[in-house]
Amino acid sequence: MSDREGELRAIDWVDGAIEIIDQTALPDELVTRRLTTVPDLVEAIRSLAVRGAPALGVAGAMGVALAARAHPTGDDAWEAAVRLVAVARPTAVNLASGAARAAARLHDGPEAVLAEALAVRDEEIASSAAMAARGADLVTALCGPAPRVLTHCNTGSLATVTGGTALGVITELHTRDALGGVIASETRPLLQGSRLTAWELNRNGIDYRLAVDGAGPFLMARGEVDVVIVGADRVCANGDIVNKIGTYAHALGAARAGLPFVVVAPESTVDEATLSGDQVAIEDRDAAEVLGFGGTVVAPAGAGVANPAFDVTPRDLVTAIVTDTRVLHPPEPAHHHPSR
Amino acid sequence: MSDREGELRAIDWVDGAIEIIDQTALPDELVTRRLTTVPDLVEAIRSLAVRGAPALGVAGAMGVALAARAHPTGDDAWEAAVRLVAVARPTAVNLASGAARAAARLHDGPEAVLAEALAVRDEEIASSAAMAARGADLVTALCGPAPRVLTHCNTGSLATVTGGTALGVITELHTRDALGGVIASETRPLLQGSRLTAWELNRNGIDYRLAVDGAGPFLMARGEVDVVIVGADRVCANGDIVNKIGTYAHALGAARAGLPFVVVAPESTVDEATLSGDQVAIEDRDAAEVLGFGGTVVAPAGAGVANPAFDVTPRDLVTAIVTDTRVLHPPEPAHHHPSR
Repeated sequence: MSDREGELRAIDWVDGAIEIIDQTALPDELVTRRLTTVPDLVEAIRSLAVRGAPALGVAGAMGVALAARAHPTGDDAWEAAVRLVAVARPTAVNLASGAARAAARLHDGPEAVLAEALAVRDEEIASSAAMAARGADLVTALCGPAPRVLTHCNTGSLATVTGGTALGVITELHTRDALGGVIASETRPLLQGSRLTAWELNRNGIDYRLAVDGAGPFLMARGEVDVVIVGADRVCANGDIVNKIGTYAHALGAARAGLPFVVVAPESTVDEATLSGDQVAIEDRDAAEVLGFGGTVVAPAGAGVANPAFDVTPRDLVTAIVTDTRVLHPPEPAHHHPSR
Repeated sequence: MSDREGELRAIDWVDGAIEIIDQTALPDELVTRRLTTVPDLVEAIRSLAVRGAPALGVAGAMGVALAARAHPTGDDAWEAAVRLVAVARPTAVNLASGAARAAARLHDGPEAVLAEALAVRDEEIASSAAMAARGADLVTALCGPAPRVLTHCNTGSLATVTGGTALGVITELHTRDALGGVIASETRPLLQGSRLTAWELNRNGIDYRLAVDGAGPFLMARGEVDVVIVGADRVCANGDIVNKIGTYAHALGAARAGLPFVVVAPESTVDEATLSGDQVAIEDRDAAEVLGFGGTVVAPAGAGVANPAFDVTPRDLVTAIVTDTRVLHPPEPAHHHPSR
């Protein structure tokens, strides 16, 4: 981790290696890990020590930079290392596209590859700032001066480099004194909401309440939420959203309660090559994640598990998608009363 | 606990006291607790050592029997004890109504009160058997010979006396060789699905998969579920269902996927005096339940919490309500194509 004047970076390039905040150790400890080899990085990605679609884009590019330094000739071992990085997790488009961007510079040598990786990092930082401003403007326009927000998973500094996507918008609303409250969904099985989002909100001095994932739609129905703001691991060409498991249930709740459902994700997450959500490979993760809770096994021995790590929220449940350069599918004033 | 020829009873009257299976110790240990005083029982109800709407009806009646034996004259202390039992938890109608039934017999002496409590128990046992048969018939009629079921919370023997409501139907389908699979939703915060439903399914030799609560609607959308079957803590006069938090999200998922959403609950749960779900006091439980599980705390110190223990599923999301005597709001063949 690097910490520049209080700015926390979830991933960075420091003294010839990748440095990450180890997100498996939060909120108990703020641990920095140095990743000096591709296998180190792949393990960190698979174990979710580094996670979040935008951060994975940077990780993919920096992983290729590590490979380029270890195998400067672009030989077979280099190809294998790049491939290892690109497929460490299947669902977020950013990992593979970040790796591809850096890999395209190999003919200019390892320093050019690293320069491209650092450019990916810097663009993600700028992108977070742009999304925060555009997203806060949109949410204020949709919901007025003090909306109560429900969010899911972690989409803050820890999921990007610094700043965040959905949580960046929430932080910006807080900075503008235009935030009415936050409910953070705990996000089983890995509790990114309870562990990471709560830790970031705390660090930024923003009051919040945690809720179990199943409570989201009911809290909306009961009038405790004005807007749902989430990130995305992939935005499909038709506007379908692939995001952390549980997102779709919140979207159904928002639609039923008549609440705006706003997605905040950088352009690097928009994947025009994937037409719709049903074309996306959804990662199924280990049973152990579901059988236990924070190291404690609760289920009987031998229990089977269904553990999709992501779900698909169809386009029609999404009010708007805020990126760093535009609002995709912006709300139409006449949306609820179409003229025919 | 009493265990008659393999029949497990979650609550019973044994040698002058209430015996329960302590559900906070499952699935690790099968512990029987004897409750000899009203305060013992109230603590067991509040800590969810005994839980489930039908079981709470029996607990309410047996609690009054305990009070009648301790205060046979029907004095002020007796009134206070009865009230303590009836309000130990607010949301399930059965607790208060079971207590009221037993209390109405006080003028006939403590043995008459106990006889009424035992009648409540025996009626719940018969009720479970009747629901299992009627519910299995309905599900087979709706879904064909091998439906894959998603269920939420625990609605088996542990939630009743023996047999169960929704899980009783699932067990009956299994017995009839008419079950295609079970997904049990883990049911945060207290993990009744992972701990109790998994334990009961295991004990009955029924294969199952556990899933986090947020995955339910997506597993339905992805075609892995044919029917959702749940219990109810209260059925309102208009058909609104009050049940464990997370039920409403599954109902939204079922409606969107076009799947039947079947509620199984005894007549004792039907509350004609409560017109609709918004009139029901929803119990808010301790923050500690959400901040961690067991002894494991995952959230940062000082985190706020929203922890409603139940939610309301509106009538229009419910396909049918199966009780021990009838099918309330049965599906109409022309439901999706009303003639006008």
